[in-house]
Amino acid sequence: MPKGVPETVPDDGLTTRQRRNRPLLMVHTGENKGKSTAAFGLGLRGWNQGWNVAVFQFVKSAKWKVGEEAAYVALGKLHEETGAGGPVQWNKMGDGWSWSRKKGEDEDHAQVARDGWEEIKRRMLAEEHDLYILDEFAYPVKWGWIDAAEVADFLKNRPGHQHVVITGRNVAPEIIEVADLVTEMTKIKHPMDAGQKGQRGIEW
Amino acid sequence: MPKGVPETVPDDGLTTRQRRNRPLLMVHTGENKGKSTAAFGLGLRGWNQGWNVAVFQFVKSAKWKVGEEAAYVALGKLHEETGAGGPVQWNKMGDGWSWSRKKGEDEDHAQVARDGWEEIKRRMLAEEHDLYILDEFAYPVKWGWIDAAEVADFLKNRPGHQHVVITGRNVAPEIIEVADLVTEMTKIKHPMDAGQKGQRGIEW
Repeated sequence: MPKGVPETVPDDGLTTRQRRNRPLLMVHTGENKGKSTAAFGLGLRGWNQGWNVAVFQFVKSAKWKVGEEAAYVALGKLHEETGAGGPVQWNKMGDGWSWSRKKGEDEDHAQVARDGWEEIKRRMLAEEHDLYILDEFAYPVKWGWIDAAEVADFLKNRPGHQHVVITGRNVAPEIIEVADLVTEMTKIKHPMDAGQKGQRGIEW
Repeated sequence: MPKGVPETVPDDGLTTRQRRNRPLLMVHTGENKGKSTAAFGLGLRGWNQGWNVAVFQFVKSAKWKVGEEAAYVALGKLHEETGAGGPVQWNKMGDGWSWSRKKGEDEDHAQVARDGWEEIKRRMLAEEHDLYILDEFAYPVKWGWIDAAEVADFLKNRPGHQHVVITGRNVAPEIIEVADLVTEMTKIKHPMDAGQKGQRGIEW
């Protein structure tokens, strides 16, 4: 991928340096594979730049563990031990976030998802991370657990220099509206159409 | 992403186990970001399964180094030292592959690209890796340096149990035809449309 050169330069009063370094809100949506894997691949770039990277995985099962989690934990440990790359934190919703007392108590997933968003807002206001990967975050918004307009408004006005990636199908139009980059992973062919089941190393 | 359940099961005489474990040829194409990052993200899943993962990056500049390369090298080293994950090898075309004597001699990129494909075929016949990431491989095929029909035929008949991912815009129809999974990264919005330049940690 070549380093990009813009076709037009907007009259926004920003210097090239300011414009280059503007924090991005990125969305990976669409029906096919690659939404989360591309987000986690992007996190490797951030890690290599020494960024503080945090994943918030909005999946309901605590047992659901993708290979990326193990790799990220390994890279985070490597950073702690040798200083290579940047710090990495992997947070998973499951039946409750690790920081939450509500863990496993009543399995109110809507409330747990809202707790996740509140924590993300708190951290963004404190500018704790350089890159936030909000994996599968589209779903709690789609299901009405978290208000799309509030998310869009907050992210649009987040302070400092914090990149954000949101993944999931059917990302709310309010969020698409304020995003800088939106990629749709479009299905051209999928092995499950041919009766193939998900397999380790590929699906998780 | 939930573990997939197929809608229909083909009458191909395979057991569920055989079908589940069938090796995949995956293609990431389309005009937007995410093709390579999703491939490298997938490699993390393979690494975590203990797979032998090899990247062949068909980019012309040896200077072009993405963050994923550093992360993969770190994960490969971690595997060697602690046994975590699987072995990882990152090969870059540049002015010549590391195994090639032609390195930097005449800058005949077409020949260097063909050398890369010959090496990949040799390794596939020897079943050396579990996952091959042929990054930006669409281009030498598009430019006619490597024959699309030959690639498709070889990959279709590759022995054993070897997964393959090919990335790049305008993947040849012959390759699409034999692929199991094809995802198009469709551009909905891109920050360069707003005059933003590529930035570190995001584009590389």
